[in-house]
Amino acid sequence: MQINENFLNLEQSYLFSTIAKKVNEFSANHQDAKIIKLGIGDVTLPLTKSVINAMTEAVLEMGNENTFRGYGPEQGYEFLKIAIKDYYSNKSVNLVADEIFVNDGAKSDLGNILDLFGPGTSLIPNPVYPAYLDTNIMAGRKINFLDGNESNNFLPMPEDGDGGDLIYLCSPNNPTGATYNRDQLKVWVDYATKNNSIILFDSAYECFVRDANLPTSIYEIEGAKSCAIEFCSFSKTAGFTGTRCGYTVVPHELLVNNIGLNKFWLRRQTTKFNGVPYIVQKAATAIFSKEGQEEVKANIDYYLENAQIIRKGFSELGFWLVGGDNSPYIWLKCGMDSWAFFDKLLNEAYVVGTPGVGFGTNGEGYFRISAFANRANVLEAISRIKAIF
Amino acid sequence: MQINENFLNLEQSYLFSTIAKKVNEFSANHQDAKIIKLGIGDVTLPLTKSVINAMTEAVLEMGNENTFRGYGPEQGYEFLKIAIKDYYSNKSVNLVADEIFVNDGAKSDLGNILDLFGPGTSLIPNPVYPAYLDTNIMAGRKINFLDGNESNNFLPMPEDGDGGDLIYLCSPNNPTGATYNRDQLKVWVDYATKNNSIILFDSAYECFVRDANLPTSIYEIEGAKSCAIEFCSFSKTAGFTGTRCGYTVVPHELLVNNIGLNKFWLRRQTTKFNGVPYIVQKAATAIFSKEGQEEVKANIDYYLENAQIIRKGFSELGFWLVGGDNSPYIWLKCGMDSWAFFDKLLNEAYVVGTPGVGFGTNGEGYFRISAFANRANVLEAISRIKAIF
Repeated sequence: MQINENFLNLEQSYLFSTIAKKVNEFSANHQDAKIIKLGIGDVTLPLTKSVINAMTEAVLEMGNENTFRGYGPEQGYEFLKIAIKDYYSNKSVNLVADEIFVNDGAKSDLGNILDLFGPGTSLIPNPVYPAYLDTNIMAGRKINFLDGNESNNFLPMPEDGDGGDLIYLCSPNNPTGATYNRDQLKVWVDYATKNNSIILFDSAYECFVRDANLPTSIYEIEGAKSCAIEFCSFSKTAGFTGTRCGYTVVPHELLVNNIGLNKFWLRRQTTKFNGVPYIVQKAATAIFSKEGQEEVKANIDYYLENAQIIRKGFSELGFWLVGGDNSPYIWLKCGMDSWAFFDKLLNEAYVVGTPGVGFGTNGEGYFRISAFANRANVLEAISRIKAIF
Repeated sequence: MQINENFLNLEQSYLFSTIAKKVNEFSANHQDAKIIKLGIGDVTLPLTKSVINAMTEAVLEMGNENTFRGYGPEQGYEFLKIAIKDYYSNKSVNLVADEIFVNDGAKSDLGNILDLFGPGTSLIPNPVYPAYLDTNIMAGRKINFLDGNESNNFLPMPEDGDGGDLIYLCSPNNPTGATYNRDQLKVWVDYATKNNSIILFDSAYECFVRDANLPTSIYEIEGAKSCAIEFCSFSKTAGFTGTRCGYTVVPHELLVNNIGLNKFWLRRQTTKFNGVPYIVQKAATAIFSKEGQEEVKANIDYYLENAQIIRKGFSELGFWLVGGDNSPYIWLKCGMDSWAFFDKLLNEAYVVGTPGVGFGTNGEGYFRISAFANRANVLEAISRIKAIF
């Protein structure tokens, strides 16, 4: 009996457990301190009215024998795939419905997609969302890092000799909030095309982009359909972190040795996945109604206004930073190591953020602040931070 | 760029698409024929009252900022895990909550579990639920078949030289409806223990067992906790085929080379899965309330009564069969090849079932009838079938 020994190469992630431990200890010793959490990337606003109404209606359908739904298509109901397809049309990206695979959130498919590939090398940014790295380690793939740093605004570009047949890009980025422009993504698409690599493009934060010059889908870039898979999610768009729905786009043009990956992915999904709950797919479809889109925009406006308050506060204090303009995350240079900055904010301002080093070695000396929070708390946090610097 | 070439070894499954095509052609040519479908293993009764009430309440919580839930624990909320743990206590199986991993249905985890293992050989019954076979082919594992046939009542037992470090057992079985007794499972547990194999036990149909002498969990068998992983689902129990929830049990006693698989699976799930929707977990918890259990029992009684009608009908016609007494499936010997029997039933009785050969070579000459149907349709189907034999 052989276990998958690649698991033994995983490092234990103590990031969020260490944060929790430190916060708990501080609370125990400072019972009157009102701690403000700007750490975790989880939404705080409830599901919107359109979504709740659609879900309520779907629950009633499920309780009635005439409208009850059993197994749905593994790849998602046509009504949701059409709504997503139409959403892409508005970005001038033309998809066909069977290029869209509805899933239970981007995290699952970002890991599961590796089922389609043999051994090889992945090109992964540093710093990075830890799941990219860990899923590659589990699959036993070789990893080359892309160097994100202050000089490239944490938007690394390809360099000769980078190697890598799978390239992970996330824009707007988690954890840095930095966003690639069209020219930069065109360089990446050309690089992938030339090297027969595939870009795995994580667009989970696309709805935070408000600069019309910035792309919100890799498919806005010419040539991307034959070299990129896109992963998106309703988690941050519409508050679905606890409701679980997203989608993966695998274009028909995407071929490896003349084999269409769309067909491979369909086979993978029909064999190892049984679709997303009907009620959740109805709820997700409501996001794309006129009212749904207005509600979602209002929620994202709220988070982006939080982000502006955070950006302004730290900028006025002279911190170097990126993100926060087309993203819910602000990534700032601490002027000390990441954990020292964490301790200072917690102990002196009662504010919790995320040490950048938790996202990779290149995050050392940096810090992530999340705009997913209540407005009054954001204002109070910035006011306290201003008082300690 | 290497694709996973194991995918090229998958056979296209034409079973259900061929059935659909034949049914569509027949319908087009016989527009007045009222076709009765006893083919697909999908439930027909709606979600029960307790489940609908719990879900409605949870939807309201998600729309209110004070009760809204974002990310939950990847392995499931404590309230559901405790309910499942208590359910096992009633079978005299003692689990701890963190041995239970809530998922979006047994199919996902039955495939995903292979992430934990290196290369090896799987022992898979023939006939079988096709997903076991296909996920093993995708993972590039060697496959040895277990010979299910009339002489062992489609309940194959281990034989010397079978080999296999992973052993797939499903009881009550899909597609045959046959159910292992305690003595038989004890032989399997002893065999796995002796050979350092792991049993992957699919108990998705456990709630159909009405014979108190038959086990409903592998953990009722002494020694199973150190050699078995159990996969269960609310799909058939409580009509969750379109609502998606189940669970996997990985006992702490289960070690490979002194490595605990529970910890490995936790790492896999926290990295590649983000949990089941809160509303669905609340709904699943309602299944375990007193009312929920009564409702579920009533629904299963209904399906089991259908199964008795089907058993009786075919038995009176002299067909050899198994299943249907502690299972929703009846597996019968056609007296002709599987597809000829399918055509006869469709053309002469307007009844649709599933050709056994679609589940493996040993299914040739057999046929699966599903009891998931409306009572009047079941009675009518049997009456028509009696008229043609």
